[in-house]
Amino acid sequence: MKTDNIKSIAVVAAVIVTSEGILATQRGSGDFKDKWEFPGGKIEAGETPEQALMREIREELDLEIRIDSFLDTVDYTYPDFNIKLHVYVCSVISGILNLKEHKSLKWLKSDGLYSVEWLPADKVILPALENYLENVTVDKKDDMPAYTYLQEGHFALLRKPVPHIVNPKDAIVRVTLSSICTSDLHIKHGSVPRAVPGITVGHEMVGVVEQVGREVANVKPGDRVTVNVETYCGECFFCKNGYVNNCEDQDGGWALGCRIDGGQACYVRVPHADMGLNRIPDNVTDEQALFVGDILATGYWAARISEIKEEDTVLIIGAGPTGVCTLLCVKLKNPRKIIVCEKSEERIAFIKRHYPDVMVVKPENCKDFVMQESAHGGADVVLEVAGADDTFRLAWECARPNAVVTVVALYDKPQVLPLPDMYGKNLTFKTGGVDGCDCEEILRLISEGKIDTTPLITHRFALDEIEEAYRVFENRLDGVIKVAVNEN
Amino acid sequence: MKTDNIKSIAVVAAVIVTSEGILATQRGSGDFKDKWEFPGGKIEAGETPEQALMREIREELDLEIRIDSFLDTVDYTYPDFNIKLHVYVCSVISGILNLKEHKSLKWLKSDGLYSVEWLPADKVILPALENYLENVTVDKKDDMPAYTYLQEGHFALLRKPVPHIVNPKDAIVRVTLSSICTSDLHIKHGSVPRAVPGITVGHEMVGVVEQVGREVANVKPGDRVTVNVETYCGECFFCKNGYVNNCEDQDGGWALGCRIDGGQACYVRVPHADMGLNRIPDNVTDEQALFVGDILATGYWAARISEIKEEDTVLIIGAGPTGVCTLLCVKLKNPRKIIVCEKSEERIAFIKRHYPDVMVVKPENCKDFVMQESAHGGADVVLEVAGADDTFRLAWECARPNAVVTVVALYDKPQVLPLPDMYGKNLTFKTGGVDGCDCEEILRLISEGKIDTTPLITHRFALDEIEEAYRVFENRLDGVIKVAVNEN
Repeated sequence: MKTDNIKSIAVVAAVIVTSEGILATQRGSGDFKDKWEFPGGKIEAGETPEQALMREIREELDLEIRIDSFLDTVDYTYPDFNIKLHVYVCSVISGILNLKEHKSLKWLKSDGLYSVEWLPADKVILPALENYLENVTVDKKDDMPAYTYLQEGHFALLRKPVPHIVNPKDAIVRVTLSSICTSDLHIKHGSVPRAVPGITVGHEMVGVVEQVGREVANVKPGDRVTVNVETYCGECFFCKNGYVNNCEDQDGGWALGCRIDGGQACYVRVPHADMGLNRIPDNVTDEQALFVGDILATGYWAARISEIKEEDTVLIIGAGPTGVCTLLCVKLKNPRKIIVCEKSEERIAFIKRHYPDVMVVKPENCKDFVMQESAHGGADVVLEVAGADDTFRLAWECARPNAVVTVVALYDKPQVLPLPDMYGKNLTFKTGGVDGCDCEEILRLISEGKIDTTPLITHRFALDEIEEAYRVFENRLDGVIKVAVNEN
Repeated sequence: MKTDNIKSIAVVAAVIVTSEGILATQRGSGDFKDKWEFPGGKIEAGETPEQALMREIREELDLEIRIDSFLDTVDYTYPDFNIKLHVYVCSVISGILNLKEHKSLKWLKSDGLYSVEWLPADKVILPALENYLENVTVDKKDDMPAYTYLQEGHFALLRKPVPHIVNPKDAIVRVTLSSICTSDLHIKHGSVPRAVPGITVGHEMVGVVEQVGREVANVKPGDRVTVNVETYCGECFFCKNGYVNNCEDQDGGWALGCRIDGGQACYVRVPHADMGLNRIPDNVTDEQALFVGDILATGYWAARISEIKEEDTVLIIGAGPTGVCTLLCVKLKNPRKIIVCEKSEERIAFIKRHYPDVMVVKPENCKDFVMQESAHGGADVVLEVAGADDTFRLAWECARPNAVVTVVALYDKPQVLPLPDMYGKNLTFKTGGVDGCDCEEILRLISEGKIDTTPLITHRFALDEIEEAYRVFENRLDGVIKVAVNEN
């Protein structure tokens, strides 16, 4: 007896949303000639649905897309086969639309979704799409400049559509002031593998809320806000424990300016806006708040986890921007002594000028100096914020037994942990990236005059001048520490 | 004008104490012919006082000595020169006394110190020596067997003098039961550089207090006691913070059986006896208490610092004796799941037989198994107690983000800490050796039936059979886990 199984096919389709509307394409041949569909096609062996969709859209329309959001999966039984259709909401990254397989296209507005004759399976997804669109304004504004990671070694100021709400927890923020972070340079030079080509970079910014999804409760249009470098849901195991950097949400962790469009642009879409945005107190300027969401959050987190006590000698290795933010937050703990280790004369002068109560030492003298200034054979706490070739070794060598060594720096290379040499020294190493969930507290401290990062801002540019801002920042020209990039 | 400086000479002298008494030697020539002195001589360029003393005694008496205690420094002005005389109390390690420079010797009892005509400088130290001897019984007993580290690769059962009180905080303990630890093997094979050749090994033992110095308050002769692997003063910064492994005392940390004579012998001298000895409750046998001071203290410490919560999945890598002790102490924290990773079939069978509620997995399946059994992408806590080639990597790979990874194992080689790969995983690494200051609490738990390490004792030997005990333990013969070595 022959078993007559009906064939089942996995396919993907893109709801491509632009300022023109939603793209529908018309078949020019085959069983369903003249019917309308969302472009897409079969998932081939070895492909993920997302890979298949990006390939299909490239083949059918000559477009590079980004997948913004999963919409729905539809099971539909045709007479001869079943299909399992996975549908995603997408944006165009680049390319000029060129119909290579279809005979025609239409840009549908949300009230015109039923104005064409859809393929049966595609028609099934319309209610989910309508529901989705209720929470989205297909933006009518012009496009905007957006500083974009094209490929390893290349950023460029492109024009892109203004972002829109794609999830009811999103907010759209008009970026009034942004900055450039060393991590942006890491993306540029290809050392952040998860960074997505085509993405708008930038993850240090403040702005004004322009629009919020219907589930956003903590901020409203018109609010001045800081934007957190990390996206987090606030609900998963990690968020509930304050480990927001490892939020389990698909956008969780450092996504902005890395895996979803960031803030070196006029507007930014912020997922989980209730978590990622904090209102700036009226007496705090944009420049005062600029670093709250990233490097200042990092310094605050590093000081928080380092178990600093008032009798401690604390060593901070590295007086770059994050090192200075770390210093400011360590000072709030009132340790007995703070020693900063830095090799650049310019940065040493900066520390001496602004923080005369802090001791500064060069790397080559650091170990001897720390031993001399410590009561118990080394620093009680070490914060490694340099990430240079030899600074990890310096960190543990300068620590006293049973010290906490907090590794804030991002390294290019694996480090050697010589456990036989340090056996019995009983060090605790805390590693990782910021869990940036203290922004409200940091803003309060700024408002009370207890933290001031404005001396870090040495240069100011407009968004249109961002290439020059990068040139100055990346090459450390003209004594630059941090740049502020204003909206045009 | 000629400046007529008086020459100043740095010299060392040894108060050599044996069961015969205190060694005095008589000069056979020179200005002070026929006068008596403590043997010694000038410190040569580049020598420490201790090195000079050991060399001089070798040259003058053909003896190898160990320096037990610094006694005093005397400044004395002779007509033509000054001397600065550093005096140490010493024991004989090996050699047959042979007078190569002196004409005669005497063994003085403590009440006969003034019975010879001393050199003037040597006479000055007699009051300090008398004061010292008040707290010391120059032991009249026979010598005893003591298992001794001769040189890399070689241990031997020698006969040595029974130890005596050299400091008022010392106790002498008659060792009723001892064990062999993997660290003893590390000493044997030269991988513990600070281990001193000539030392009696052994740092896991219980016994009966034989004698106490006048400042010992917590134990008295006749008390059954556990002996702590670590010597600690209880008063320095590190001790006050519970970091007794880094006690600043000269004997602080792991000294017994490493830098001072240990317990694979009939008697052991325990410095800081009030800290290092704990009375064994009456309902606890010697075998039940045998591991309290070392591997069980290690397991208890590791579980204590690992921040284990009841909802956690805990991974323990390695089911050797310390791994099993760690397991027993982790069980006291009642985590949701405990997974033990072990490669030896024998040890896997041991875990399954004795602890059926614990999951066991082999290294090659460990990561997948842990992921499957964990709620949040890995173990919440990892304790690395194996110290094999790949187990450090396995430890951090099996940890969930923000986990605590406690490194209990002692490694032969430096480990690689691939911080770029684990960036954002935010792991905390706790490294080091046991801070063994919980023995009283551990004894209480044993007394209450909450910890039982007796299944670990698979083999029993007498002290005279210790070479065979090492052969079995080192070669893992006959299913051995731990051996118990009884007094003869």
